[in-house]
Amino acid sequence: MKTYQKNDEFSYALGAFPTFELVKNRPDKTASIIRHEKLTVNESIEKLFALAENNSIPIETNSRLCEKLSPKENIFLIGVFSKYEMTLQKNVNHIMLVNPSDMGNLGTILRAALGFGINNVAVIGEHADFFNPKTVRASMGSIFSMNIQVFNDFSDYAAVHKNSPYPFMLGSKTKLQQLNDANKPYVLIFGNESSGLPDNYLNIGTPIVIEHTQKIDSLNLPIAAALAMYHFDKISRH
Amino acid sequence: MKTYQKNDEFSYALGAFPTFELVKNRPDKTASIIRHEKLTVNESIEKLFALAENNSIPIETNSRLCEKLSPKENIFLIGVFSKYEMTLQKNVNHIMLVNPSDMGNLGTILRAALGFGINNVAVIGEHADFFNPKTVRASMGSIFSMNIQVFNDFSDYAAVHKNSPYPFMLGSKTKLQQLNDANKPYVLIFGNESSGLPDNYLNIGTPIVIEHTQKIDSLNLPIAAALAMYHFDKISRH
Repeated sequence: MKTYQKNDEFSYALGAFPTFELVKNRPDKTASIIRHEKLTVNESIEKLFALAENNSIPIETNSRLCEKLSPKENIFLIGVFSKYEMTLQKNVNHIMLVNPSDMGNLGTILRAALGFGINNVAVIGEHADFFNPKTVRASMGSIFSMNIQVFNDFSDYAAVHKNSPYPFMLGSKTKLQQLNDANKPYVLIFGNESSGLPDNYLNIGTPIVIEHTQKIDSLNLPIAAALAMYHFDKISRH
Repeated sequence: MKTYQKNDEFSYALGAFPTFELVKNRPDKTASIIRHEKLTVNESIEKLFALAENNSIPIETNSRLCEKLSPKENIFLIGVFSKYEMTLQKNVNHIMLVNPSDMGNLGTILRAALGFGINNVAVIGEHADFFNPKTVRASMGSIFSMNIQVFNDFSDYAAVHKNSPYPFMLGSKTKLQQLNDANKPYVLIFGNESSGLPDNYLNIGTPIVIEHTQKIDSLNLPIAAALAMYHFDKISRH
């Protein structure tokens, strides 16, 4: 086995927590569990091993592979999984990421999304690799509870899903802070880290801006996405 | 000149945007500006250079130093500054970070704080270096508009500042989502990335929890902090 490449059929969940999420949510995709000889087996690791055994997932000791796959950190447990295709669920809330370029940000957004009850993520166009171990780790394994589907453009998505679109962009008239109602199911749309959303998204649904002081240029992408999901979840439920 | 060390008197703002914030907000602390020979001088760089000139800040070309200070990225402009002491302003809203350990997270929190009108950050105990170039860069230069002051513990802070404390911790009864009023000035308190706040903070002020699904273990620190600042800013103003 070698370090991960984008076109590999397999990828890795680095660490006990993401591996637990993998085995719990996608046992059929889990090829094996790799442990380092220095792994301390506590109660939750025992639980994980029992779950793996129930699902006939082999557990191998291979310290060198652990070190090779996580050169900067001490990772003593790794889940190996085969990558898979996902399809968005219909008639539930979605988020949409247009050209997300950073794997850490992508993983952080997935984790926050799952925290606010969003399990379905549409990705448009060129994007960071969501199965890269960095994304998986930043998501803390949230990715294994989610559906991520890539579309060429917004109209390909809209041909299948009738969710009310809320693009988040600086030029918008409606402030998130003043929004008290949302059409459900919704899709909250966020642009690229550097360039934001293309101007044509101003003509789609209800564009929203998150009001902030003029002392900063913009909010960073995972924070903007989390604020949006938090606010929409709140006005939908409370 | 060498790469940055924690005990150095000087540090670096890497990139044009953070350097602009440095020169604009702390011209007296700016020692020099270093440019790479490949720097493209556009309109905003011209503005920056004019501002530097007005403040008698020298501009040197030193491509090797740029490459040495930013080995992973192409950074063509660097602001060199002398580190300085800051004191929190009284009778304004604060945030407090207890043992923040990650420089990227710290910078991200500073940027979001400035976006929601908070310019004063108390730091308690052991903490990531806020003048490290990584923190400065993650803050996008926001740090130069802020006051950060280190205290030994909460009581040292409370002896000087009478802000109403709102510690954010999982064991709290009050949900952020249901909070409609806040005592001002407030101090929003956040714990370490891994361990959160020590239990004794449950006895301080009004502990708050950010409600999220049980599908995730916790929200990541910058996102929790941003949600809290967003919500408090909103209920204070709208």
